Amino acid sequence: MNRLLVAVLFLSMLAPARADYLVREIGSFHLGGHSLTLSGLPTREIIFTPGAPPIKSDPNGEFVVGQMYVQYVKLSHPKAKVPMLLWHGGGLTGASWETKPDGHPGWQQFFLAAGYDTYVSDAVERGRASWARYPEIYKSDPFFRAKKEGWELFRIGPSYQEGGTREPFSGTQFPVESYDQLANQFVPRWSTNDAMTQAAYDALVQKVCPCVIVVHSQGGNFGFTAALHAPNKVKALVAIEPSGAPDPAQVNLSDLRKVPHLVIWGDNIDKVAAWSKIVQAPNRYLDALKQDDVPVEVMDLPRMGITGNTHMMMMDRNSDVIAARIQAWLVRQGIMN
Amino acid sequence: MNRLLVAVLFLSMLAPARADYLVREIGSFHLGGHSLTLSGLPTREIIFTPGAPPIKSDPNGEFVVGQMYVQYVKLSHPKAKVPMLLWHGGGLTGASWETKPDGHPGWQQFFLAAGYDTYVSDAVERGRASWARYPEIYKSDPFFRAKKEGWELFRIGPSYQEGGTREPFSGTQFPVESYDQLANQFVPRWSTNDAMTQAAYDALVQKVCPCVIVVHSQGGNFGFTAALHAPNKVKALVAIEPSGAPDPAQVNLSDLRKVPHLVIWGDNIDKVAAWSKIVQAPNRYLDALKQDDVPVEVMDLPRMGITGNTHMMMMDRNSDVIAARIQAWLVRQGIMN
Repeated sequence: MNRLLVAVLFLSMLAPARADYLVREIGSFHLGGHSLTLSGLPTREIIFTPGAPPIKSDPNGEFVVGQMYVQYVKLSHPKAKVPMLLWHGGGLTGASWETKPDGHPGWQQFFLAAGYDTYVSDAVERGRASWARYPEIYKSDPFFRAKKEGWELFRIGPSYQEGGTREPFSGTQFPVESYDQLANQFVPRWSTNDAMTQAAYDALVQKVCPCVIVVHSQGGNFGFTAALHAPNKVKALVAIEPSGAPDPAQVNLSDLRKVPHLVIWGDNIDKVAAWSKIVQAPNRYLDALKQDDVPVEVMDLPRMGITGNTHMMMMDRNSDVIAARIQAWLVRQGIMN
Repeated sequence: MNRLLVAVLFLSMLAPARADYLVREIGSFHLGGHSLTLSGLPTREIIFTPGAPPIKSDPNGEFVVGQMYVQYVKLSHPKAKVPMLLWHGGGLTGASWETKPDGHPGWQQFFLAAGYDTYVSDAVERGRASWARYPEIYKSDPFFRAKKEGWELFRIGPSYQEGGTREPFSGTQFPVESYDQLANQFVPRWSTNDAMTQAAYDALVQKVCPCVIVVHSQGGNFGFTAALHAPNKVKALVAIEPSGAPDPAQVNLSDLRKVPHLVIWGDNIDKVAAWSKIVQAPNRYLDALKQDDVPVEVMDLPRMGITGNTHMMMMDRNSDVIAARIQAWLVRQGIMN
């Protein structure tokens, strides 16, 4: 094959963002979870719809707990050998992957156009996965993310004054004028459901993999752990700013020698105190992976000359440049047909 | 045009369920809602991810309240003149339209294959729309639907014994062995957010219509009201077992003379006490519509010889037969190109 043809074929794999694609089926499913019975709670009368008669509602009975929601898009002619699973971060849902605050379609669209079947999930307790009552079932109260916390923790800018100035980092890639669209995506979360969530993610891997998994933030720890639990099912793991990681002393890293890991970090991490701490556990884990001969690539974007990226880099203005870097790495892992 | 060709063309519009379709873009957005500031609540420390350091979480600040989530699929070559909006029922999310408990894809797939751009939403407080803390923001506690309530209220069967026998109606079309998959879709709900929800639906109509709207159950009242608020934007309204309706004395029905309404009722309504009451308000509304020369068609499925359908008829075994009836009616309204 001549070099020009190779170059054209390679570019056609990297630059898919606006291509239409033929779809065989769009659908969704829930998986994981278990049944749990409540009793002894008082009944109530509710008018479900204006104009409707009151209906007695009994809060007792059997409930589902710990299920996860997954929406899939199956292409007629996928170009990737395996589907891509997209796992969101904390206080967020699969919407992270569907859209960008400036109204452009998200990385789901990018990777569909690149030829992957996609599975976009909502973790236990988030979005369409549903949530259960507390304290009777969940063991703690939920947390609600204020706009200020999102602005600062996601490193969009150093400070946010309620009802006043929202200061962005100089040169930020986030579409700051559309920040409220990101805040619209925030959902409540609990800190006591991780075991159920991991179990549901593990069940998802068993159901639909072999696959590529792309994880973000809180999803990082779930993704690293899912790969440890099913190393033969995970053909590549892409972690966007993972906020946690397993303790390398507690797990068998050598199982991962055929699971290439790509980790991507954005900009301004040293300027937000929380982040200097957050990166420690993932970095310790990545160092241990490398020492155990697991294939690991770290893209530290500012060191590569790509500056201004936030924790929500899949929504930044240059997000498709980053998606193209991921896709190029996946091509190198042999994921495409 | 000869009759055979007309017949073939007509059938091709009615039988799309398994056709692949070319997609231009999949994405989502939130809309509606407003900002609200909380103050005076105590801060907490949270470990967001195992292995991560504790982070101070401040429950005060600006929050978004009342936003709605909408996922869209835009076809490259839609055959319908306008997109289809699919609005779920109470205690449910847009997942109602995406999948059936037996694992088959839902009506979203049917109508995509038929040539509609689709907009599947999660109402305020449901699914990916997120929800707000109570009692500080929402004015009441949420309700959680037990499996028994779903079984009986959705007329899958007359009785459900906790942990025991689930008795279905004789001849039910619901895939009863997969009932737990429906229960997986149940999400908590409030009874005090209807005004916010209506405002968000109205904003959705302004944003993406002219359109066809398909509503289910609690969505019925929101859909009837949305048509009253924007009669020029709603080209047809399909109400699947609406559980409520506006008071005809309080609204201007004559505005709706160019908005054809189709209402579909399933089976066994007379066998569930709650349903004998629920149908009264919608039937009173439909009678008033007819008297005011609004085009109304009612499909009472058992009277048409289609028996065994539940309140969740978009998930019943014969659900695509019903979808085809809806599509034939929409063709008669001139919705297809």
